[in-house]
Parts: sequence; C-alpha cells; structure tokens
Amino acid sequence: MGLTKSTISLLSQELIEEGWLVEVEAEPQPLQARGTGRPPTPLMLDEHRLAFIGVDLGLASATVVATNLVGKILAEHSGPVDIASPAQTCERVAMMVHALLEDPELRRRGVVGLGLGVPGAVDERTGMLRFAPNLGWKGVPLRDLLRDALAGGPAAQLPLYVQNDADVAALGEFEFGEPPVSEPLVFLGLGTGVGAGIVVNDRLLTGAGGFAGEIGHTVLDAQGPRCSCGRRGCAEAFVGLAALVQAVLGQDSAPVTRDPAMLLRSLPASVFATGQAVHDEAIGAALERAGHYIGLLLQNLWAAFDPALIVLGGPTCELGESLLGPARERLAHYAEAAGLQPPLVRQARFGRLAHAVGAAAAVIHYQVRPLSDATQQASSMIAADAG
Amino acid sequence: MGLTKSTISLLSQELIEEGWLVEVEAEPQPLQARGTGRPPTPLMLDEHRLAFIGVDLGLASATVVATNLVGKILAEHSGPVDIASPAQTCERVAMMVHALLEDPELRRRGVVGLGLGVPGAVDERTGMLRFAPNLGWKGVPLRDLLRDALAGGPAAQLPLYVQNDADVAALGEFEFGEPPVSEPLVFLGLGTGVGAGIVVNDRLLTGAGGFAGEIGHTVLDAQGPRCSCGRRGCAEAFVGLAALVQAVLGQDSAPVTRDPAMLLRSLPASVFATGQAVHDEAIGAALERAGHYIGLLLQNLWAAFDPALIVLGGPTCELGESLLGPARERLAHYAEAAGLQPPLVRQARFGRLAHAVGAAAAVIHYQVRPLSDATQQASSMIAADAG
Repeated sequence: MGLTKSTISLLSQELIEEGWLVEVEAEPQPLQARGTGRPPTPLMLDEHRLAFIGVDLGLASATVVATNLVGKILAEHSGPVDIASPAQTCERVAMMVHALLEDPELRRRGVVGLGLGVPGAVDERTGMLRFAPNLGWKGVPLRDLLRDALAGGPAAQLPLYVQNDADVAALGEFEFGEPPVSEPLVFLGLGTGVGAGIVVNDRLLTGAGGFAGEIGHTVLDAQGPRCSCGRRGCAEAFVGLAALVQAVLGQDSAPVTRDPAMLLRSLPASVFATGQAVHDEAIGAALERAGHYIGLLLQNLWAAFDPALIVLGGPTCELGESLLGPARERLAHYAEAAGLQPPLVRQARFGRLAHAVGAAAAVIHYQVRPLSDATQQASSMIAADAG
Repeated sequence: MGLTKSTISLLSQELIEEGWLVEVEAEPQPLQARGTGRPPTPLMLDEHRLAFIGVDLGLASATVVATNLVGKILAEHSGPVDIASPAQTCERVAMMVHALLEDPELRRRGVVGLGLGVPGAVDERTGMLRFAPNLGWKGVPLRDLLRDALAGGPAAQLPLYVQNDADVAALGEFEFGEPPVSEPLVFLGLGTGVGAGIVVNDRLLTGAGGFAGEIGHTVLDAQGPRCSCGRRGCAEAFVGLAALVQAVLGQDSAPVTRDPAMLLRSLPASVFATGQAVHDEAIGAALERAGHYIGLLLQNLWAAFDPALIVLGGPTCELGESLLGPARERLAHYAEAAGLQPPLVRQARFGRLAHAVGAAAAVIHYQVRPLSDATQQASSMIAADAG
C-alpha cells in the first residue's frame, strides 16, 4: 500500500482503541519461518465491543436488529407500522430502536450507528427518500424525520444512514460475507416491490438520483399491466408479489393488500410445498410462469451488470423451489443458448432478516468508506502517480 | 488532496516532461488578488506534443484515427476488413495503423498507445475477446494477435488496450467531454449490435467477464425472434439495425448482410428525411414502432443505472428524428407516468467516429487510471483512515 510500518502501527492503534480491531496471540511458528526482530502481533476484527443497529422499514411492519462487526445478530425486534404518515412511522421506529437498546448485551457495547433500509430510491448524501411507489411516499426527508423522532432518547446522537432496502441487503452480503466477496455482487429483492442492490468496486452503485438497480421498473411489455410506479408493463407488474398472488388465485381475486406477509398468507398451503408436491396443476403452472419471468429478470441483470454473484432475497423467496427452480432453469436455458457460463445464484445469507441486517452492515460500510469527494480525488491522484 | 506543495511540484514536472501538461503564462492579476510569494504558474493539458491511436473494428470495415490529448482528430483512415479470420483481420488493421503513422503531424508527436474497440465482450486485463456474436468470434486473444501483427513496424512497442466498442465510446464522451462530466454516463450504441458503455465513479463498469452493459441482450419477450447471441427475444432482435431494416422493408425481405453501411443503403431515401417528410405510412409506422422500442430501452437503462446522461451513437442514429423522436417521446412518457425527471439524452459528440475516437480516449483512460489491485487497496485504506 506504500505506507510505512509506523503509519500502519498508528492506524491500527486507533482502530484498536475505537473497538474495531483486537490484538490476538501469535500462533507459535517453526523456527525457520520466523524473520528477525520482534514477531508481528496478529490483528483481528473485534466481535465483542461494537454494535450496529439496522432497521428494515416494510409496508406494514418494521424489523430492528443489532449486529456485531461480523454480522452476528445480537438482538432483534419486529412490529407493525402504519405508513399513513412518514413522521408517525419514524416515531414508531424510534420507539422500537430505543426498546432494543435496553438489551443488556447492547448496553455493554459501543453502538456505532443506525442504518435504515426503505423500499424506495434514496439520496444517500441527504437521507431524502425520493420515490417509494409501494409506500406511496415521494420527497420525504426520512433521515431528518428519524433524527427528530430519536431526539431525547439513547440513540439521539447516533450517525444515521438511510438507503434503499435492496442496496443495504447487498451491503449485508458484501460486508458480512467471507472475503474476498465476488464482484459485481447483485442482491435481487423479491417482494411486493422488486429491486436490486449492486456492489461494484467495493461501493454501492446508486446512480445519479438513487434509482440505480430499480430492475422492477424495467419495462418488459409496453402494453402490460399498470405498475405501482405509474408506468405500464414493468417487471414488478409481472413478478411482484401482488401480481404473483393474483396469478395463483386467478384474475378475479385481485389482492386488496400490498403487505407481503398478508399476501403470502392468502395463498393455499400447497404452494409452499416443493415443486413435486404442488398438486393443483393451475397453481403449479402459474408458479412456473412467474418463475420463468424471474429467470428472465436474472438474465437481464446478467446482461446489464455482469455480476459474479446474484443473491436472491425478499418474502417471495418463501415460495421456495416451485418458483425459484423454474427461475434458475430459465437462466440456465439462456446461458446455454448463448454458450456462456451464467453467474452464480444463491439465496440470501440472512433470510427474512436480509434487509435489517443489511441496514446494520450499511453503518459499517459508510463508516469505513465515507461518502467524500476528497477520497475520490485522492484515489485518482494515486492512480495518476502510479502511471 | 493532502499532498504537499513539493510533491505536487514533482508530479507536475514529470507530467510536463512526458508531454501531458504545459506551463502557460499567468494572467496578470489585480494587486489585491495576489498572495505573498512567487505567483503560481498555471498548468494546462498540452494539446501539441502527444497523440493517441484509436481503432474501431466493425463488421465489414475498420476506422483508424489519431487524436491529441483533448480529442482533436489529427488523422483518420477507414477501409474494408474481412472478419473471416481474426489473425488476418489484425494484420489488415496493423497495415492501416502503420499507414496512419506516416502522417507528418503524427511523426512530430509522441504516440502514447493504441486502443482497439470491438463489438463484443472483452477481458480488459488480458485483451481476450470473450464473445462477439455479430463477428462470430469467441475466445479470441485479440491483443496478442494485434501485437503479433504490429511486430516489426513503428507501432510494435506501443501499449495496446482492447475494449468493447460501446465502452470505449463512453470513455470518449467522458475523457474528451467538458469537465465535470455528468455521472453515471451511459453510451448506447445502436447498430447491428446494441450495447451500452457505462462510466461510474470515473471508471468503466465492465462486470465480472466484460459483459456489463450488454443491454442489447436483455430479453424483452421470451417468445420473441432468435437473436445473434443464440437467445430468443433479446432487445437486439427488435431494435438491432438488421431487425429494423427488415421491419421497414417488410417481413419477406430478410437482410442478407450484417454490415451496417450496406443495411443503411438498402433503405429507401425517404427514411432519412425528417419525421414529417416520411411519405410512406407503413415505413413511418415501422420507424415509430422501432423508436418506441428504443425508448423502452432508454427507460430500462434509466431503471438499471440511473444515469445523469445517456449518449446515443452508432450507425442507426443516421435515421435521425423519425426514429429518435419517438424514442425520446416514449422515454418522456414513462417519466411522466412515474412523475419523475428523465435523464438527459443527446447524440454522440463524435458522430460516426464515436468508437474510433473513444478507442483513442481509452489509451488516455488506462494510462491515467491503470488497472491495478494495488490502487484499489490504497484507496480503501485512505477511506478507512479518513473514517
């Protein structure tokens, strides 16, 4: 890295003092492997001193978790939220956060910050939610509202990070994955909304206005059904959970809710069985069709971002192999037609907690890789120097 | 940037010696604006000492250009190529390059390197062409073949950079644009092939295998026509130039060539007139339909990458407003439906030379921002330090 030994020492000392790193006992080594001088002291990530709060704000409920530095869940709490008023939603979330912080394990630790994942496009610099069709919110200063709601409580002074829920889920896979994590990494969130988070060159791809990865609003059929965003024929109007439930239940039973938990509960139990056990042929066919659409989305994510890894998450994944089997099959079919190796596809490491744990990972991400133009310029200069 | 004055001085001196920068006369300033001490000497990019070679390898012809450091074209040469054998194609390209280097203006200058843009996915580290459906090439060690073909001539020792043609065109807009260039920047190349180059955080988004931005191979209709890549219903099978010509001429006249120049020549002259002057209703409708598909692609690029700017280029753009008007209209329609501001869309700065000039810009790009894992790590460390 071109840094001197003493600079490294100083930097490590700071990180040890702050609770990020810990010195561990050196493994005894055979004599011939030792260099001259004092043997170096191994450093590891400290799993025991810091905590990170992550909030997943959904359409009808919120989940709050605390994790340690390597993604171990220390505490977890879920509850219903009403999304009619953003300010009241934030007050409810703040209560949940303050309740979580009562946990004795968290009181022992230094809490570094709070990440909030939301189903919409966010300006990560200002914490402004630009557009969340499924929440029905537009231009909401979410970070400021949450800051106000947290005032006076134990979390009042915490750094707050607001980001899209698929984006933070991608950060969860990236920051808490076994290094080296394959890149580009795409997290495809399948629920009422359909969106992707993309990590490339160690950073989120957020785009000019926080809309990057909104793969659910790529148009597949200009004459298709109306989407939550106002456009016609978006991918979400075909593979979003509401569309999927309607396809399974039949066209006459349009779902009246957008809450993913209620949508899943409206499905017959046989749907959640494995592919072979789906007895109703019409239901099996509907799931297979939807799975093929998801496979088509995977193909399109591949063509757009050429990821090394696609992680599938979100409530729709609870439908299991009768849906995801056909999706993988369709992707394999496209790869075979082109004579190419498809990207690796696997399910989210943190299951239904992917968004909340990801929001905690976002705290680590932005603390370690702050949003700063100066950093950007410095790295360009190093490149110029090296050339 | 955290660099000392003397470091900056040393770095500038090196760049002046190499021909990248030149010292210019300081503008006389009013007394009160002067600081104490020696007034600083302004530095500018030197337009007069260096040259960069760019090659655009097409399906039936190649174009070679030389530019200066700010994208001024110093010399240009085009000629037919036969793509039956990659090695022979490279020999032909090498002859064209050597002929160009005879130009007296270039003999006066220091030639820094050669960039080659090709219609396919490339591993930029090895210069291996992975897959180019329209050339019919797969797994071709293009940089090595070109190195062999250049051996013994005046370009034998030049650094060579091989990259996808839409990618280099994006670099042309980025490196030769008025700074600050808006990001993410997407170049959408419309020709026999359809592909996008994406610049984000000052770098190309290439993906795990060089396939990122292959928006022409996003599938729009699983039951659609067969594409050059082997899949069905790709965007290219709807808006690629061959599909477009067939739509205009009618289904019975499948084009026998993939050469974009010949495809364009097979169209009636009225097609190239402005929208109002297209007399044949069927032709006007076919162009409008194709334009709407391109608008749908623009919408999908927007949703995937959230660019600040989309640049349209490639031979299909010669059809002008009767095609691009409906495309922009459709994008505006999608934006209005969602109540959002669409990204800026404009045509390529270098017109039909976009790929060749972009290939020259790629030389500058990779010289100034070399591909290096060390650079990556150093920049992460700075970020960690700043945190």
